[in-house]
Amino acid sequence: MNSSELQNAPHIGTLPGGPLGTIADVQGVTVGHCTLDAGAVQTGVTVIRPHDGDPFLAKVPAAASVINGFGKSIGLVQVEELGTLETPIALTNTFGVSAVAQAQIRAAIRANPRIGREWSTVNPLVFECNDGYLNDIQALAVTAQHFDDAYAAASANVASGSVGAGRGMSCFDMKGGIGNASRVVGVANRSYTVGALVLANFGRLTMLTVDGTPLGRMLAERAAKAAKVAKAASSATLAMKAEQGSIIMIVATDAPLDARQLKRLSLRAAAGLARTGSVYGHGSGDIALAFSTAYTVPHGADFITLPPLLADERLDPLFRACADSVEQAILDTLWSAVSVTGRDAHQRLSLRDCVPDLAQLLERTR
Amino acid sequence: MNSSELQNAPHIGTLPGGPLGTIADVQGVTVGHCTLDAGAVQTGVTVIRPHDGDPFLAKVPAAASVINGFGKSIGLVQVEELGTLETPIALTNTFGVSAVAQAQIRAAIRANPRIGREWSTVNPLVFECNDGYLNDIQALAVTAQHFDDAYAAASANVASGSVGAGRGMSCFDMKGGIGNASRVVGVANRSYTVGALVLANFGRLTMLTVDGTPLGRMLAERAAKAAKVAKAASSATLAMKAEQGSIIMIVATDAPLDARQLKRLSLRAAAGLARTGSVYGHGSGDIALAFSTAYTVPHGADFITLPPLLADERLDPLFRACADSVEQAILDTLWSAVSVTGRDAHQRLSLRDCVPDLAQLLERTR
Amino acid sequence: MNSSELQNAPHIGTLPGGPLGTIADVQGVTVGHCTLDAGAVQTGVTVIRPHDGDPFLAKVPAAASVINGFGKSIGLVQVEELGTLETPIALTNTFGVSAVAQAQIRAAIRANPRIGREWSTVNPLVFECNDGYLNDIQALAVTAQHFDDAYAAASANVASGSVGAGRGMSCFDMKGGIGNASRVVGVANRSYTVGALVLANFGRLTMLTVDGTPLGRMLAERAAKAAKVAKAASSATLAMKAEQGSIIMIVATDAPLDARQLKRLSLRAAAGLARTGSVYGHGSGDIALAFSTAYTVPHGADFITLPPLLADERLDPLFRACADSVEQAILDTLWSAVSVTGRDAHQRLSLRDCVPDLAQLLERTR
Amino acid sequence: MNSSELQNAPHIGTLPGGPLGTIADVQGVTVGHCTLDAGAVQTGVTVIRPHDGDPFLAKVPAAASVINGFGKSIGLVQVEELGTLETPIALTNTFGVSAVAQAQIRAAIRANPRIGREWSTVNPLVFECNDGYLNDIQALAVTAQHFDDAYAAASANVASGSVGAGRGMSCFDMKGGIGNASRVVGVANRSYTVGALVLANFGRLTMLTVDGTPLGRMLAERAAKAAKVAKAASSATLAMKAEQGSIIMIVATDAPLDARQLKRLSLRAAAGLARTGSVYGHGSGDIALAFSTAYTVPHGADFITLPPLLADERLDPLFRACADSVEQAILDTLWSAVSVTGRDAHQRLSLRDCVPDLAQLLERTR
Repeated sequence: MNSSELQNAPHIGTLPGGPLGTIADVQGVTVGHCTLDAGAVQTGVTVIRPHDGDPFLAKVPAAASVINGFGKSIGLVQVEELGTLETPIALTNTFGVSAVAQAQIRAAIRANPRIGREWSTVNPLVFECNDGYLNDIQALAVTAQHFDDAYAAASANVASGSVGAGRGMSCFDMKGGIGNASRVVGVANRSYTVGALVLANFGRLTMLTVDGTPLGRMLAERAAKAAKVAKAASSATLAMKAEQGSIIMIVATDAPLDARQLKRLSLRAAAGLARTGSVYGHGSGDIALAFSTAYTVPHGADFITLPPLLADERLDPLFRACADSVEQAILDTLWSAVSVTGRDAHQRLSLRDCVPDLAQLLERTR
Repeated sequence: MNSSELQNAPHIGTLPGGPLGTIADVQGVTVGHCTLDAGAVQTGVTVIRPHDGDPFLAKVPAAASVINGFGKSIGLVQVEELGTLETPIALTNTFGVSAVAQAQIRAAIRANPRIGREWSTVNPLVFECNDGYLNDIQALAVTAQHFDDAYAAASANVASGSVGAGRGMSCFDMKGGIGNASRVVGVANRSYTVGALVLANFGRLTMLTVDGTPLGRMLAERAAKAAKVAKAASSATLAMKAEQGSIIMIVATDAPLDARQLKRLSLRAAAGLARTGSVYGHGSGDIALAFSTAYTVPHGADFITLPPLLADERLDPLFRACADSVEQAILDTLWSAVSVTGRDAHQRLSLRDCVPDLAQLLERTR
Repeated sequence: MNSSELQNAPHIGTLPGGPLGTIADVQGVTVGHCTLDAGAVQTGVTVIRPHDGDPFLAKVPAAASVINGFGKSIGLVQVEELGTLETPIALTNTFGVSAVAQAQIRAAIRANPRIGREWSTVNPLVFECNDGYLNDIQALAVTAQHFDDAYAAASANVASGSVGAGRGMSCFDMKGGIGNASRVVGVANRSYTVGALVLANFGRLTMLTVDGTPLGRMLAERAAKAAKVAKAASSATLAMKAEQGSIIMIVATDAPLDARQLKRLSLRAAAGLARTGSVYGHGSGDIALAFSTAYTVPHGADFITLPPLLADERLDPLFRACADSVEQAILDTLWSAVSVTGRDAHQRLSLRDCVPDLAQLLERTR
Repeated sequence: MNSSELQNAPHIGTLPGGPLGTIADVQGVTVGHCTLDAGAVQTGVTVIRPHDGDPFLAKVPAAASVINGFGKSIGLVQVEELGTLETPIALTNTFGVSAVAQAQIRAAIRANPRIGREWSTVNPLVFECNDGYLNDIQALAVTAQHFDDAYAAASANVASGSVGAGRGMSCFDMKGGIGNASRVVGVANRSYTVGALVLANFGRLTMLTVDGTPLGRMLAERAAKAAKVAKAASSATLAMKAEQGSIIMIVATDAPLDARQLKRLSLRAAAGLARTGSVYGHGSGDIALAFSTAYTVPHGADFITLPPLLADERLDPLFRACADSVEQAILDTLWSAVSVTGRDAHQRLSLRDCVPDLAQLLERTR
């Protein structure tokens, strides 16, 4: 492994990734970021569009697993009941949820003026993590415009790292944020893709496990000697007092699954998350949502025509793809994020800046 | 039964009510309304304070049952995980949730500036129903100020009817809104109170059942003859096309219960709701939340000291009190609400205005 | 209403029933009873076959709602995960569950010797109520043969009352047992049937509500005067000390629904149950399971082909049919059951024997 | 690492283990095994007693997480509702559940003859995995006597490996069975113990991860060369066709937690399980149950007096202890189990027999 290999995190598992290595490897999925980088305001909005149509008219089968419910998301009650999402998926900081939900509502009404009149209301779906270490979260800086900007920016060219909702996030006491990955699997003589996008804002340094290597523990042991890491370690001390993290894991697939099956799939994100060192800490809102692009549920229809669904007995490759994608996406966050300084001179170093000899360290353990 | 008896709905069941006949019969609980009554804007905010302290510092044991999850509430994920609420309970219209949640956050930060900094974030708890028939819900008229006003107005003197969040609500195709009731039960040689406050916005006329009497069916049969009722019936037709209702049922008790037991208690709201004619319609977000005032959970403590908890085997009287209070509170809504005209000249008549001979009708069936 | 009308319970609601008035109105569903009537042994087994094929090879979409989980059923964990049942549904007494589950396993192995070898194991589905008041439940009298006999007896000619698993059951301190009902609804220009079979073993006399009339309360008020009712009332006193009831509500439909939708449907049984007077008592295992006969899920397939599914927005008529069928089936139990004397001379009178003037009593309140 | 170090699996994580390294490090917990080793019958029963009293009279706070519900356990419905267990916890093979449940009922009646008469019935709690590869599961060899024998054998001297319910189990295509581990943590200036006992019967060889090292993949790569491993690999091929595994994870603690908190704790077993390579496969019934020995819930009491409960914000060390104990217990299974030959000459080699150079292999990756 040479320095050029630092470009990417180690490949997790044995399944191949998709061509882009992002959630957009699932055909039709696009992502947009709006990043707020202004002194004490280090935050943003990320929007995931399941398809390029109107998700209120063409609802998307979806389901979520709340692995640890220390979280303030909006929209999950209805997703659980109806098994569909009807807005894009939005990610932001904890105190930005309301502004983004309001923006989701306004956007849906603009597209469908009958919402809330002849038609039922719309269920905005907004997830959050607390970026309060770097970001002045009390400033409530996120506005409806930021959602609109992120939505407008959505494309299949998906950035990872200190962008969008990930701008102010921390992960393992280093810089966290947005991460992406995908896996391609063969099931029943077909090929399916699973893609993951995570908003990673959890963990203490000592937990960090990279493809089985307890890197965090190794780094912590060096901490007394290296100034930069000591810095991270001291912020780790803060984190020990009160973990206020969270991770949102969005899983997309083109496999034909119904909501019950997607709920099963989404739970496998917990396996990928655990392999990076998390034990789903008390203060971490750990939520996974999975959706399928294989069909949509038309608004107002009498009957819903589904493609043949994969049998549950055939789901194991997809389960593995989900776990691997989520683990890979968390590593992608660490490898992609750049160092950020925010409110009160709080700073999170990127893994790269924190551990210049990362390649050697990981090599040594292989 | 004479006309004076029209003042109140029939008493449901055999358990006695509390002195106030409202949720405030549970000692320490107060309620405030902010009512918006301005032409097409017919909506508002209702705030329930579980105690007169700061619920972030002294969290309140609570749990919810989602009977039908066609709803856009915020805050339930964390209540489910942690079994406490840490803000007042707020009720408003579907598109007002975000503004009220933001107001909850701001109020919590004002009271505790360490929230989102040294401390974790706060979990705003906001429930909603869709008042879009009477209210121009697309106007997004509810603001943070309305939450603050409702909060400031909280007292043990609790109004029912077309007030607060209930201003624009419909129920059984007539005027709905806020309803209250309470019951006092003896358990294990102690006396406990159960109080209910509902935001009732569900149901079609023909479903309405009053203490077992199928009043709605009786009224519908008269509909061809009576102009006023025909009006209600025609709006019923609209409702048939797309029920967009909901009911939020808040249950308070001074009985010492933990979150698991409160979840059990909250589900019994479904029994009271069913007895009024509901079958938990697809488009109705039917959610019950129960909390106890018997103790609080201090923020930041190492250990939580609980009073002796009632054994599960002793809960039946409380279960009955919950069901009866919720049924009674729904009737209280109908008996208390006044007729309201809102957007596009939409009108909901009060039960009183709709059925001038209500006392006679009900008497006939006894 | 004259005495001949005593033959049947009042018709609940406005939806028409099916031709048989039983769960077998759902095409293909058959039921068999094995009744044990021997002194202190008053118990039995009831088997519901969703179709006349092998449910392991052609699994049936199904889902359950646990309304109150004071129950000892077996099989629900897997139904919740996979959304199918793969054995007939069996009902028996609480301490007979194991014997019947074992019989289910043996029957499945006989039909498919590869189960537990090349194939996975089979998930027996057995529900129970506690018939210990009439039946010597400690005798553990139910054996595998009784399951086999009930299975062999399955037909579309379904008996209600003191038969099968219902032999020893009590309901409202009177004789309970098996009840049946069905409703036919129009949805999206099609006609669908919902059928219910209940094993009713819950409730105290004073709770009993018949189509809105508080009959139990009326009877209790007469209790001091009438010897027979006093007897029921005294057993009611026993029940007050420790309700040990339960109700199992099996709901069948030919509507094309998936497991998520069937879970929604099953919960509406709670509404029908509440309208008979239940508040889902602490000691009552109240469980509803719904299944659809519109398609099956073949064992070992790669893909599952579904018919077009009814949209969730079209489910309200089915929800009402479920609630009405369950309420009707509970009444059917009371109207069908005959008086039974069991262990220690314990006796449960039928409603008929308990209230000879039932028709007049109900007439008076109409 | 020398050959003597083969005696034990590597120590997972940084938390210290308890003195015994078994679930019995939680004071008062005892375990008994009954092992059936007779040709094609390779199975058994394991009983965990939470305390040495009568759990029906002194119920134990408990809660479970169903991580993947492909399982046939009995008793979880009531544990979920009431948050207590009232029998010992029994483990056996899938088709032995009924016999063991019946034995649990009989034992409870023997101890408390009022059960099912004046008192309510008892809720037997039995978990299972499918040992059908080694064991002739269709023989239904487990009887009530085996439960009684396991119960009578319960002590704080707890064996791991191919014993009790673990006799016929497979894990990662090698010999699985019973595993134990414990961790001691400091919380709020107190010391608490978490112990885990697993019945491990899941996984394919290539998944096996030992403390982060992908041992299974390494072994699979050697498989073409080594006869013994090839054998395991060929049985792995079988497993690929239809994983029919499962893992039951029983977690005990002396920390004062209520049922809601124990449910949170139990879910952390999923993290430990994932770190061994599992993604919670479709056909694997992955269930964790946690109980606390810090207090009991007396049968028939009016009020339940609890010790001060640990605050949720203090649970992180316990969460970590749960994940680490479960991971360690799974490794303990592999290290403790001996090779077993069962029905049709099916054989599972122990890890030791499979990988004679295990110490060197693991050393190489450190």
